[in-house]
Amino acid sequence: VTTIQFRQVVVAPGVIDLGVGQPDSTVFPLELFQRSSRVALDSVEQAEAEFFQYGAEYGDGHHRLALAEFLTGAYGVSVDPELLFSTNGNSQAIDMVCGVFTKPGDTIIVEEPTYFLARGIFADRHLNIVGVPMDGHGLDVDALAETFVRLRNEGTPARLVYTIPAFHNPTGVTLSEPRRQRLVELADEFDFLVVADEVYHLLGDLPKPMSAYVDSGRVLSLGTFSKILSPGLRLGWIHASPPLLKQLAGTGVVSSAGGFNPLVSALVTPLLAPEALGAHIAFLRQEYGRRIALVDVALRESMLDRVKWEVPHGGYFFWLTLPQHVDAGKVRLVAKNNGVDFRQGALFSSDAGLKNHIRLSFAYYRDDELIEGVRRLGHVLRLST
Amino acid sequence: VTTIQFRQVVVAPGVIDLGVGQPDSTVFPLELFQRSSRVALDSVEQAEAEFFQYGAEYGDGHHRLALAEFLTGAYGVSVDPELLFSTNGNSQAIDMVCGVFTKPGDTIIVEEPTYFLARGIFADRHLNIVGVPMDGHGLDVDALAETFVRLRNEGTPARLVYTIPAFHNPTGVTLSEPRRQRLVELADEFDFLVVADEVYHLLGDLPKPMSAYVDSGRVLSLGTFSKILSPGLRLGWIHASPPLLKQLAGTGVVSSAGGFNPLVSALVTPLLAPEALGAHIAFLRQEYGRRIALVDVALRESMLDRVKWEVPHGGYFFWLTLPQHVDAGKVRLVAKNNGVDFRQGALFSSDAGLKNHIRLSFAYYRDDELIEGVRRLGHVLRLST
Repeated sequence: VTTIQFRQVVVAPGVIDLGVGQPDSTVFPLELFQRSSRVALDSVEQAEAEFFQYGAEYGDGHHRLALAEFLTGAYGVSVDPELLFSTNGNSQAIDMVCGVFTKPGDTIIVEEPTYFLARGIFADRHLNIVGVPMDGHGLDVDALAETFVRLRNEGTPARLVYTIPAFHNPTGVTLSEPRRQRLVELADEFDFLVVADEVYHLLGDLPKPMSAYVDSGRVLSLGTFSKILSPGLRLGWIHASPPLLKQLAGTGVVSSAGGFNPLVSALVTPLLAPEALGAHIAFLRQEYGRRIALVDVALRESMLDRVKWEVPHGGYFFWLTLPQHVDAGKVRLVAKNNGVDFRQGALFSSDAGLKNHIRLSFAYYRDDELIEGVRRLGHVLRLST
Repeated sequence: VTTIQFRQVVVAPGVIDLGVGQPDSTVFPLELFQRSSRVALDSVEQAEAEFFQYGAEYGDGHHRLALAEFLTGAYGVSVDPELLFSTNGNSQAIDMVCGVFTKPGDTIIVEEPTYFLARGIFADRHLNIVGVPMDGHGLDVDALAETFVRLRNEGTPARLVYTIPAFHNPTGVTLSEPRRQRLVELADEFDFLVVADEVYHLLGDLPKPMSAYVDSGRVLSLGTFSKILSPGLRLGWIHASPPLLKQLAGTGVVSSAGGFNPLVSALVTPLLAPEALGAHIAFLRQEYGRRIALVDVALRESMLDRVKWEVPHGGYFFWLTLPQHVDAGKVRLVAKNNGVDFRQGALFSSDAGLKNHIRLSFAYYRDDELIEGVRRLGHVLRLST
């Protein structure tokens, strides 16, 4: 019965699913949002309740002005409100970007590994996906250049590169500054767009996001309130150059329905202040930082020596490397019978590789469950390797 | 400068644009929505604030239960909450339905004329559009059957029929009951889906919507709060059989982002009661009914004898027929210089026909402006015909 379901993820009783890459309900700023909504709704006059109307194509003007000011501070990048376009969050934005900037049958590049649920969106848009490897500094830009040469020679030039440059999902790696520059140079050289899913950027202390490169005309920076406020709002933004935004605003859905999410934009606008959303993000960083340290200690205590990981500096994920011969998909079958779950590396691979990896999220559970989950996982790995 | 724009439609000063097919800001139930939001937001506990999470794929369970009860009363059709799927409104729903149930290059059928902005959505999905004529009883189902035979013989069978069965946009016509039955029979015979855009159904006193036929497995009934509450909410629903809904829930975007608009669903749920939303709809019917009578009188006073129209029983639109030789597109150029605007028939045609028609909306303006707009239009027609 689907009507008794109120949220997307329902974990079986008794299981700690360290695979769930979503925030837990305790971190949502309920009071902050209640206050913000009250400001937006309670004092408004009928004639001023613009949020009831079909919205402006690029998003509500008040919202974009406040968002630009917020991002300028939070990103350390001067963000022009004219270069912002409101979305229903990054999944919808990825889908829309594909609809506008590719055609069915086109080839696009993703990182190997990449966010596994983005691959379903690309499949729905009838795109061919080619993976390019990553290392500890993010996407391997030399391998990317080689791939573009190869694809060009094969007559199937890629239209865009989808990247998660900060606290990558699933690896937790952040793309280095020199590689960011090189990526944008390559975009010019090979005539492609960089679709930067910057969903985790603000969940850690990082230099500038890909948002800093939008003047190149090659970069679409996709941001969302899902990880810094709440996913249920379904509100995000695209930061990009005017010719790119103009194409998004000219789509059939926008022409018919107006801009995305006018009401929710209005409810969120009053809290886009450093002392409101800024303070909440500081709390999230502290909270997740604490959980990272806790999971790291638990992993050291529970894992076999041959299991390796880097401690992430932000985002949601640990990426474990098991011994080469271990298939994490098979381990998962044992895990479920031992009250723990995770996501196996192969899910994130574009060519059925990365079998000996595990993605763990520290975002969905609090301390005790995180520690217990890792302990159970250690037990399962000892059983199955 | 786009950031000073807060709503989609901005009419030039001094112009009465009777083409705007949107509600005017005075009819939005601000107080009702304020109260409903307060119920949803103010008393909730942190752990119960499910609307902050990624939502259940079909939509929030509480919302679907309340919506099913509301629709059962308002439609006079027993609506099972399990057969409802929340959307971001009908434009997004049309786009999504095309993404799931057609592939690029497919042919689909629309009414001739049809909602002009839906055609942009179909174009974005790379669909070929074939128009089938209407008359005073709606879509000509015999012509539809002939078209299906022809397309099948040509090797390009159509996948779906997009129809606006109640208070059609732009003609205002409602599909007759016998034709509704025949449409569903044809869907079985020729293996197609009926995508019924029932956006205006509740804005008048009608028999059952196409929603009554979902058990056939052939019908997707698209409903929205845009015309009965507010378009800025971007909230609607699809009523369809389980196999169809399952495919919608399995798309890449939904798998990644969860169901559509959990927060707004929660804000709306408390007002889904006959004494709340039901009473508001009764007010809208009365208000629009009054405007219809007013515009009809103004048209009789201002129009040349050779201009014809049927008085609509609901919806948003009058559809005027000018003498055969008059090109309403050219009339529009004269109209703009005389402080009035409308939409010419050719916009709604799939083969550049219907040039001698005009769509007028009575939804966007109040009495004085409606009367003055019609007066100006009469003047313009006398100038240009």
